Amino acid sequence: MKEYYLLILVTILSITSFYSQDSNDLFVRLVKIEIFPTALSEYTAILNEQMNTAILLESGVLEYRVVNEKDNPHLFTLIETYRDYASYLSHIKTSHFLKYKVRSENMVKSLELIDANLIGKTSKNN
Amino acid sequence: MKEYYLLILVTILSITSFYSQDSNDLFVRLVKIEIFPTALSEYTAILNEQMNTAILLESGVLEYRVVNEKDNPHLFTLIETYRDYASYLSHIKTSHFLKYKVRSENMVKSLELIDANLIGKTSKNN
Repeated sequence: MKEYYLLILVTILSITSFYSQDSNDLFVRLVKIEIFPTALSEYTAILNEQMNTAILLESGVLEYRVVNEKDNPHLFTLIETYRDYASYLSHIKTSHFLKYKVRSENMVKSLELIDANLIGKTSKNN
Repeated sequence: MKEYYLLILVTILSITSFYSQDSNDLFVRLVKIEIFPTALSEYTAILNEQMNTAILLESGVLEYRVVNEKDNPHLFTLIETYRDYASYLSHIKTSHFLKYKVRSENMVKSLELIDANLIGKTSKNN
């Protein structure tokens, strides 16, 4: 029962903490990436390394969600959330991001960056 | 300082709790929805009502992320995560989902459902 209350607390804290950012300032990107199919496993690894490092080291990088398509696994879609536009500008100058760009350069066939609004964000942990 | 440790605990619990699901069983959908532009605010409201209800009532509905495009706000992209395929099948039979489908019927111009893999998922709460 204790665990149940703890999970409720966790959920409430997670939600309030994320939304304590002024959501009007959030900078949200929808990113579509097509990679060369032979690079799939290597690209997945360096993308995750970049994201995990950014979340760990940069206070303004709030969230990444990444999927690829089952029938076309070379097609990736990302939803990226930064605290604000300044945080994004700072992010793309970091050494881990620049390292990712260099390493992925020959794996990425096309890249589309779309400025977006966060319309809905809801998760649970139980 | 107490708050700092609590946030670390929250983060660890959130991650372990989500991944305690066998991630091979996860059913992930990338959804692209084009609505009629005049329906934007009404559609946003009923979509959020559906998502919030599903997260609250259905144990197998784990997460929704929804964005629309700043330059084309009638274009929505969703990443939906269900515990497994059975949870998804159960979800689309619920009264709140069926209510959403009926209410949104004349707002949605096109709908694309793409089976997807969750490649990356990382957030922070501080």
